[in-house]
Amino acid sequence: MIITLKTGVKQKEVNAVIDKIKSLGYKPHVSKGKDVTIIGMIGEYAEKYKDSFEAMDAVEHISEIQKPYKLASREFKKSNTVIKVSRGVEIGAKKIHVMAGPCAIESKELMFGTAKIVKDAGATILRGGAFKPRSSPYAFQGLGEKGLKYIEAAGEKFHMPTISEAMSVEQVELLSKYCDIIQIGARNIQNYDLLKAAGKQKKPVLLKRGMATTVKELLLSAEYILSQGNYNVMLCERGIRTFEDSTRFTMDLNAVPVLKKLTHLPIILDPSHGIGIREHVGTMAKACVAVGADGLILEVHPHPEEALSDGPQSLLPDQFAALMKELDLVAKAVGREIL
Amino acid sequence: MIITLKTGVKQKEVNAVIDKIKSLGYKPHVSKGKDVTIIGMIGEYAEKYKDSFEAMDAVEHISEIQKPYKLASREFKKSNTVIKVSRGVEIGAKKIHVMAGPCAIESKELMFGTAKIVKDAGATILRGGAFKPRSSPYAFQGLGEKGLKYIEAAGEKFHMPTISEAMSVEQVELLSKYCDIIQIGARNIQNYDLLKAAGKQKKPVLLKRGMATTVKELLLSAEYILSQGNYNVMLCERGIRTFEDSTRFTMDLNAVPVLKKLTHLPIILDPSHGIGIREHVGTMAKACVAVGADGLILEVHPHPEEALSDGPQSLLPDQFAALMKELDLVAKAVGREIL
Amino acid sequence: MIITLKTGVKQKEVNAVIDKIKSLGYKPHVSKGKDVTIIGMIGEYAEKYKDSFEAMDAVEHISEIQKPYKLASREFKKSNTVIKVSRGVEIGAKKIHVMAGPCAIESKELMFGTAKIVKDAGATILRGGAFKPRSSPYAFQGLGEKGLKYIEAAGEKFHMPTISEAMSVEQVELLSKYCDIIQIGARNIQNYDLLKAAGKQKKPVLLKRGMATTVKELLLSAEYILSQGNYNVMLCERGIRTFEDSTRFTMDLNAVPVLKKLTHLPIILDPSHGIGIREHVGTMAKACVAVGADGLILEVHPHPEEALSDGPQSLLPDQFAALMKELDLVAKAVGREIL
Amino acid sequence: MIITLKTGVKQKEVNAVIDKIKSLGYKPHVSKGKDVTIIGMIGEYAEKYKDSFEAMDAVEHISEIQKPYKLASREFKKSNTVIKVSRGVEIGAKKIHVMAGPCAIESKELMFGTAKIVKDAGATILRGGAFKPRSSPYAFQGLGEKGLKYIEAAGEKFHMPTISEAMSVEQVELLSKYCDIIQIGARNIQNYDLLKAAGKQKKPVLLKRGMATTVKELLLSAEYILSQGNYNVMLCERGIRTFEDSTRFTMDLNAVPVLKKLTHLPIILDPSHGIGIREHVGTMAKACVAVGADGLILEVHPHPEEALSDGPQSLLPDQFAALMKELDLVAKAVGREIL
Repeated sequence: MIITLKTGVKQKEVNAVIDKIKSLGYKPHVSKGKDVTIIGMIGEYAEKYKDSFEAMDAVEHISEIQKPYKLASREFKKSNTVIKVSRGVEIGAKKIHVMAGPCAIESKELMFGTAKIVKDAGATILRGGAFKPRSSPYAFQGLGEKGLKYIEAAGEKFHMPTISEAMSVEQVELLSKYCDIIQIGARNIQNYDLLKAAGKQKKPVLLKRGMATTVKELLLSAEYILSQGNYNVMLCERGIRTFEDSTRFTMDLNAVPVLKKLTHLPIILDPSHGIGIREHVGTMAKACVAVGADGLILEVHPHPEEALSDGPQSLLPDQFAALMKELDLVAKAVGREIL
Repeated sequence: MIITLKTGVKQKEVNAVIDKIKSLGYKPHVSKGKDVTIIGMIGEYAEKYKDSFEAMDAVEHISEIQKPYKLASREFKKSNTVIKVSRGVEIGAKKIHVMAGPCAIESKELMFGTAKIVKDAGATILRGGAFKPRSSPYAFQGLGEKGLKYIEAAGEKFHMPTISEAMSVEQVELLSKYCDIIQIGARNIQNYDLLKAAGKQKKPVLLKRGMATTVKELLLSAEYILSQGNYNVMLCERGIRTFEDSTRFTMDLNAVPVLKKLTHLPIILDPSHGIGIREHVGTMAKACVAVGADGLILEVHPHPEEALSDGPQSLLPDQFAALMKELDLVAKAVGREIL
Repeated sequence: MIITLKTGVKQKEVNAVIDKIKSLGYKPHVSKGKDVTIIGMIGEYAEKYKDSFEAMDAVEHISEIQKPYKLASREFKKSNTVIKVSRGVEIGAKKIHVMAGPCAIESKELMFGTAKIVKDAGATILRGGAFKPRSSPYAFQGLGEKGLKYIEAAGEKFHMPTISEAMSVEQVELLSKYCDIIQIGARNIQNYDLLKAAGKQKKPVLLKRGMATTVKELLLSAEYILSQGNYNVMLCERGIRTFEDSTRFTMDLNAVPVLKKLTHLPIILDPSHGIGIREHVGTMAKACVAVGADGLILEVHPHPEEALSDGPQSLLPDQFAALMKELDLVAKAVGREIL
Repeated sequence: MIITLKTGVKQKEVNAVIDKIKSLGYKPHVSKGKDVTIIGMIGEYAEKYKDSFEAMDAVEHISEIQKPYKLASREFKKSNTVIKVSRGVEIGAKKIHVMAGPCAIESKELMFGTAKIVKDAGATILRGGAFKPRSSPYAFQGLGEKGLKYIEAAGEKFHMPTISEAMSVEQVELLSKYCDIIQIGARNIQNYDLLKAAGKQKKPVLLKRGMATTVKELLLSAEYILSQGNYNVMLCERGIRTFEDSTRFTMDLNAVPVLKKLTHLPIILDPSHGIGIREHVGTMAKACVAVGADGLILEVHPHPEEALSDGPQSLLPDQFAALMKELDLVAKAVGREIL
């Protein structure tokens, strides 16, 4: 990191900073300009001492130079990570996988009906929530373990790996029995106990960026999972919160090339939440494929006006089937494939 | 709620909306203009059906009219809630309480030393973190239960109620044995299992607004706690995330009068995190008192450059003592008191 | 608009609102629930009285129902506007036009050299700034009229229409002599005198969204131009300001389908500013084509490290030529064409 | 500035950066770590070359070290600037000045009536808009020069200096004849021709921060005015745009201590726009005084429900009179005075 000292600091204060750097086992690199003195402290884990230098009165500002995450970085692993899920599905290779299904598992019928619809249209992974994070304590909170049994059975019947969200350490354990991919939702992006639990089990994890999470923080949260020994982590952009209120969130597609540069982990995109308006989900899905997504996660519901959650952004079966064909064309135009 | 239909919808579609309202037991109020048809659906819990109307193709937009929280609202309880903590401390009455101490409990010496400093200066509640949420898995994560024993002992010695943060359901149980107030941090504002756990025990809860949480969502998260039977909840504004990067967060003082209008719960402000720069914390603390805070939470450290967390925003002992006197003057100017 | 009254207002206050609506020539639609009274006021230009109702003490909240712009709306004109620029270029039809060139016109050589490069690669419109809005008064501010002569001559030689930015009313007049499209920059999105001046002349206008402009405000700013008689307006998304700091701005591609729904005006996208990092501009450009752009505006510079402005986001000639071929594939995949 | 090179760059590329620094007349300070090479380039105006280094492929990131503005900085002028307006009013000294009046000058009667009200309550400067920036082209745009004559006459009668907003270069000239302070509004914060025009005339200027303007950019915009020779500039925080929608804007009071540290210019705060809700303006005004404002600008209207602009945030005469007394108490608590 680079430590910029305040204008007019005394030599004694400069020395205190230098001595502290040395005492931590690093070599200080001092550069003096006419008005400004800067001191470089470069080396593994140097950034971890940022706070204690910033707390010194002589210090004006500190710029981080080295990345605070390691296992998630391209420097640590140059080639793209390809995650082997069950039933031959590999995420991060040429094929772009579409994870589709209802927002919430509302009934056995809905789960099986929607599974058939999305399988027929070309989706390769089945989604459905058994535990639903809801802003209001009075809203539908999910079927719980019963729902997990339905999605497991539907996955079995239609030969699709499944994904569902865990909101607590106990749910991680439960989900790892029933599902093939464990989703950590946007609201839990900095629920560190949950991240660690996801890192201690073996199933692949889909980690959703929080609505105010920076790219750097997303990678740090991934690092929590990786550092526990589970390297099968996908990152998911699903919209960030901005001033714009004509859409539910603002989908940050800029983050895709930036992440692809910084990390070897696969990137999944969620245009259903990212824009939140059914008639526009398909258009954004095309942009997601063009920008380099390794997978999409999409909400589909045969009767959205009866859905217990996220009806307004759920695609109708016909819309979804038509969209899959359009997405495949875009995928081919960028050297990938979907169908 | 008010349902605005799309321009040019057919009568059949209008009727479908009307029938759905009736089938749910509400009375539809239809208003037709030249181009626009709007339908009012007013009554208890009407807003809970918002999604399922929004999912209908004929619907252009829905405006919520009624508040989605109940127990937290002024309509439910008109008078300010006054929370009785231990040792005679009451939060929400005329006296503004200052909660002070180190960010993290680093050692017994630090805890006792800082307790004496803040007690002597006029603080009435002792803070200190035993479990620390850190962006990086490689940063100091707190002393755990050992730390809780130190803060409990320091509170005992200096006759101060104590506050510390819980990051998981298990920690809520642990904390409720050692501390007088349980803090739910900004990162866990929508960790619903944690909110419910905090609601099921008896100790007062300080709930921190997340960095991208709206005022409405903050009240909904409080409702999670209240709905479990614990009515002793304080809300804490600690800075939101915006484009401005010259400060750690942007402190949203607007939220204070807005919250005071909407809810009966006491409001605590955290200028240490809200601005994140030691030399400016005191100035913001004065604004916090002037705007109507019922309490402040402040980080104080005798040697910030050695702090394991948040050194750059921790006040020095002398700064803190001087500030307390200045704050008392501002408090008196707005009809409150601190010392 | 829908006027929600405060809980517990007296009948006298309700009547005052009703009388005011009637006095303005509208018919009030009153709906009374158990706790809440709402009054609809629907009709042309009703929204224009919003402030004066909001200022009444009995009023809790007002929801706008009708769009505050007219000429820019799909209701006013159902079919897409196709703008005829000079030299046979039509914007808003099947072909996606790429506007390319240096950020600033730095010299005659640069202008002609870059024009040849972008023309050869397939760009159809030539860009270059003669007047540069710079955050710092000490930065290069552009060559002024001399620059305009260079771009006009380059456009003539390579048979390309040209676009350049006007920052003041006088510059609008000057530019309308030399260029084919007049750009209003993001910083001037609410410079109403400038918008009116652009509306009073005949050349097509490219209006860039400001970094904190909502979709609604963008359309209102377009309305300023349209209302002066100039209907040839393109809207340009070029990134909004959010908390994310790993990119220069956050490109809001969600806005494209939303705008396409609300307005008949063509949409241009600017990934150069939208992400601000050369190596990622091409990836975002593909997403821009997939999401439905009618045109792209891209910065190209033969020697970015010598550029007087925006070097870090300017594409190299080879990058640009390769990108144009890739973009054409994506365009065809979504039923459009570029080359 | 500090130039961080990409991991794994070749010595040849390192040399190219070093040579470029030397060729510009600076001395490079090279620090090599195991993985990272950083090069310091420190000296007057070094930051101005940032773009051209950032455009080099070997460069990963550049941190600015020195401030890009000069005349506005504390380094340039250590003591607070005290601006002498007419009629003995000095802004930036112990007394906090309150600028009050209607949002728009709607009639002679309103202007004189409101002037008497605010003068009697203790305001020392009279505000009123003759040219109104309105999002919609169909909204009231102000009385123009006729309005300026009314405010000049009212200022004369009640012995108050006056302030009004200029939206164009011509209006700056007009205003400098009729008013004592020229306001540049938030929408024109980067209208550089306007800033220069304000800098070329002699009257003091109040410069409002834009809704997405950083503190650094605000100071750069002030620098545009200062660099033309007019040193009498006040900076005004009036709310920034964030995700929070329960208030019109989010007032950034953090910016006050930060600006006071960086610049010698007086700081004015505008809680009327900053929160946008009449009943909360007074509470925020107290926070503004406590945080160190040198002045407040407040909207007052005898009949807000008839106001042609900003009625919902205008204070009633009685509210304003009561508030002034309360503000004086807070001012005295922080060593200032209002009445």
